[in-house]
Amino acid sequence: MIVATVTGNFWATKKCETLRGQIFLEVVFDGHRAVAADYVGAGIGDRVLVAMGSAARAGNEALPCDAAIVAILDEKP
Amino acid sequence: MIVATVTGNFWATKKCETLRGQIFLEVVFDGHRAVAADYVGAGIGDRVLVAMGSAARAGNEALPCDAAIVAILDEKP
Amino acid sequence: MIVATVTGNFWATKKCETLRGQIFLEVVFDGHRAVAADYVGAGIGDRVLVAMGSAARAGNEALPCDAAIVAILDEKP
Amino acid sequence: MIVATVTGNFWATKKCETLRGQIFLEVVFDGHRAVAADYVGAGIGDRVLVAMGSAARAGNEALPCDAAIVAILDEKP
Amino acid sequence: MIVATVTGNFWATKKCETLRGQIFLEVVFDGHRAVAADYVGAGIGDRVLVAMGSAARAGNEALPCDAAIVAILDEKP
Repeated sequence: MIVATVTGNFWATKKCETLRGQIFLEVVFDGHRAVAADYVGAGIGDRVLVAMGSAARAGNEALPCDAAIVAILDEKP
Repeated sequence: MIVATVTGNFWATKKCETLRGQIFLEVVFDGHRAVAADYVGAGIGDRVLVAMGSAARAGNEALPCDAAIVAILDEKP
Repeated sequence: MIVATVTGNFWATKKCETLRGQIFLEVVFDGHRAVAADYVGAGIGDRVLVAMGSAARAGNEALPCDAAIVAILDEKP
Repeated sequence: MIVATVTGNFWATKKCETLRGQIFLEVVFDGHRAVAADYVGAGIGDRVLVAMGSAARAGNEALPCDAAIVAILDEKP
Repeated sequence: MIVATVTGNFWATKKCETLRGQIFLEVVFDGHRAVAADYVGAGIGDRVLVAMGSAARAGNEALPCDAAIVAILDEKP
């Protein structure tokens, strides 16, 4: 996984049926930008772990999704 | 997923049988170019979400396809 | 998928049993070089679509192959 | 797999249920940084082998994990 | 697949149980270094084909391995 920061969200009215209801967030890491499904209720500014590739489907093989937020890192005290 | 822009299309008479009937579009992102299956009816100029890797098969394991357009981003008002 | 040009072929007497009989071709794209299984009868000089990753197995899970030529692009008239 | 060095750990209270109980470590290789599940009891400073992609699930398809420490390299005598 | 040269080997006493007995070799390609399972009896100095990603498991889903030597290229006469 990579550590990324949530920086925005996306709206897409027209999408694959299997993605309906899924929230997608923009994440930034090392100067790169990607769009990840949010599985943990992350918000803008959160530092998160993003799983890439088939891991992002979490066992749902029909889901056309290749990046997912799977954890929110605890803030350092 | 990555945000890309649709820039063209491709014709290939000779292809794997499992790809027959599938529309493929050229997408450009961050200076890179790829060819993606279109699952949502995208057109040239659309800003789209592209899923890479096994996600692009959307559960159809026999499909030799590694990139797919899975959503069209709404235009900003 | 990526657009690549077929530039050569490979001989390997010693290989995994599951690869026996499979033709492999050298493909070049964006200055990179890879070796892809040929599923469509491509020849040197052809512009082809190459599928990377698990898509290259086309549903044959036991095949240790991560790149495949899945279409030959039509020549522009 | 890649050879990496373990450099730290992560705490995430909020995460996917399937990741609960799994230890994650920071690994560094060739100037890159990633977060990997630890399957072998690695510690900070260890030189380890990291498997990327679907290999990191080790057969557990529902695990949203794309990097795992699968071996600790023996120290050179 | 990529063409790589075998440059070394690795010892890891502590590893995932499913990797026990598997030989791992260091391979170098285009200035990069990786560690690959050897399925064909390659030796140091051999030019080999390396399959990356899920292809490296050759159908054994539980194997936490993401790179494998699947062929030894014939020497040019």
